[in-house]
Amino acid sequence: MLDKLMQRRSIRRYEEREPAPELIEKIVRAGQQAPFASQLYSILLSREGPHPFDAPLLFTICADIHKLEKIMDYRGWKVVSSDLALLLFAIQDAILAAGQMVTAAESLGLGTCFLGQAPYQAQKIRQDYELPLRVFPIVQLLMGYPREDPPPRPRYPLDFVLFEDRYPELNPEQVQRAAEIMDQGYLEQNYYQQLGAMIRLEGEREEKYTLENYSWTEHISRKWGQWLLAEEEILRQMKMCGFTIGKQEGNTAGPCKGGT
Amino acid sequence: MLDKLMQRRSIRRYEEREPAPELIEKIVRAGQQAPFASQLYSILLSREGPHPFDAPLLFTICADIHKLEKIMDYRGWKVVSSDLALLLFAIQDAILAAGQMVTAAESLGLGTCFLGQAPYQAQKIRQDYELPLRVFPIVQLLMGYPREDPPPRPRYPLDFVLFEDRYPELNPEQVQRAAEIMDQGYLEQNYYQQLGAMIRLEGEREEKYTLENYSWTEHISRKWGQWLLAEEEILRQMKMCGFTIGKQEGNTAGPCKGGT
Repeated sequence: MLDKLMQRRSIRRYEEREPAPELIEKIVRAGQQAPFASQLYSILLSREGPHPFDAPLLFTICADIHKLEKIMDYRGWKVVSSDLALLLFAIQDAILAAGQMVTAAESLGLGTCFLGQAPYQAQKIRQDYELPLRVFPIVQLLMGYPREDPPPRPRYPLDFVLFEDRYPELNPEQVQRAAEIMDQGYLEQNYYQQLGAMIRLEGEREEKYTLENYSWTEHISRKWGQWLLAEEEILRQMKMCGFTIGKQEGNTAGPCKGGT
Repeated sequence: MLDKLMQRRSIRRYEEREPAPELIEKIVRAGQQAPFASQLYSILLSREGPHPFDAPLLFTICADIHKLEKIMDYRGWKVVSSDLALLLFAIQDAILAAGQMVTAAESLGLGTCFLGQAPYQAQKIRQDYELPLRVFPIVQLLMGYPREDPPPRPRYPLDFVLFEDRYPELNPEQVQRAAEIMDQGYLEQNYYQQLGAMIRLEGEREEKYTLENYSWTEHISRKWGQWLLAEEEILRQMKMCGFTIGKQEGNTAGPCKGGT
């Protein structure tokens, strides 16, 4: 089982055949059994493609406060927690379910790939799936039978991720070593070359890379160094889904302990 | 493997003996292999108890932009994305790693339990672990050898979670059925009775429950209906960790596709 977890990788080529409904049900049921604050999520499924990478299944995993409000209304209660607090917990519930679906899918011979644009397309997803207010799409997950068999991808060395008792000062040598491990790892796998994708440089920066030497740290630098991913756009999408962040007031309150 | 996922449950009683360092390393390495946007997380470990439920290990899983900035600085780049966008992706990275650690731990005979208060104790955690700015604790995870063997906990019925093509209108009968499945399931397991815990009623509400009939929907109603969990407190903790939300401006930008 540990081997299976270590072998996980995203799949970007899928067979046409659709996983059987019983399989889909098993995978979602396994996702449901992940640990949660309060099951503050819902899972939308679309079999009607075309989906990215021609995957037969597209799941959209949402933070869902609508269902909580329905359940609380049934019991004669109203939500008082702030939208930011609710979203912070609901996102965790949603992502734990999604993660466990990935593991379940892999154990059944299926492959998956996350798509990160859902929060920026919330209004469109809301229209497509007729979402009620208080449901916010967090992430999408492609699924199907793999038509490729890539290796697991490189990761930072353990000592760049796990810190006991205190967060160390990361000196330039450590940063360089972590960067080199990532870059050399991806280059050895010809990852970007096979993907055929480099993020284009904006502004006056001069292109010094080709698909032969472009690798992970350059890729994430261009991503987070060029994509403005403005707060106001996310806030606007959240607002259209019935969530307000950055304008709420209230009092401090206690912690929340223990999952189920 | 699917059975193992379906059997997962939180553990609140632990043996004293500490899992071996090799085991801890295997579990964190498995967590690292989860799918990510950009490895925007770090994992803090404390073996020095006492921790809640006397668990020998306490992990604190953090959204980490500090490391990203170090890597980007090494490549001559600066982050331009908004803090809200960064946190939205970093929280997903952090939770996917945490979820995969849970599965890895279970596969090795260990038990786990999430603790949700980290975002409200961010400043204290920051001091305890000497966190640099741009690192925000999202969730904590207890781990150790289980000294109890509880059953997996009830979940909503599948048709209250998985929606194909459109989000249905949830009628009162469906809501009641979902509520009853949760409540009866928890009552059959004597969950709250064994836990010995009920959330106290605030204000003028009259207590009508005892540990014998108090169950899940009443519990989450009291949680989200009484805990103000104010936005300003979360924003204050985020601010102290170097993140500003609700006051940033910028432009819209493109999506982000595909995990690794």
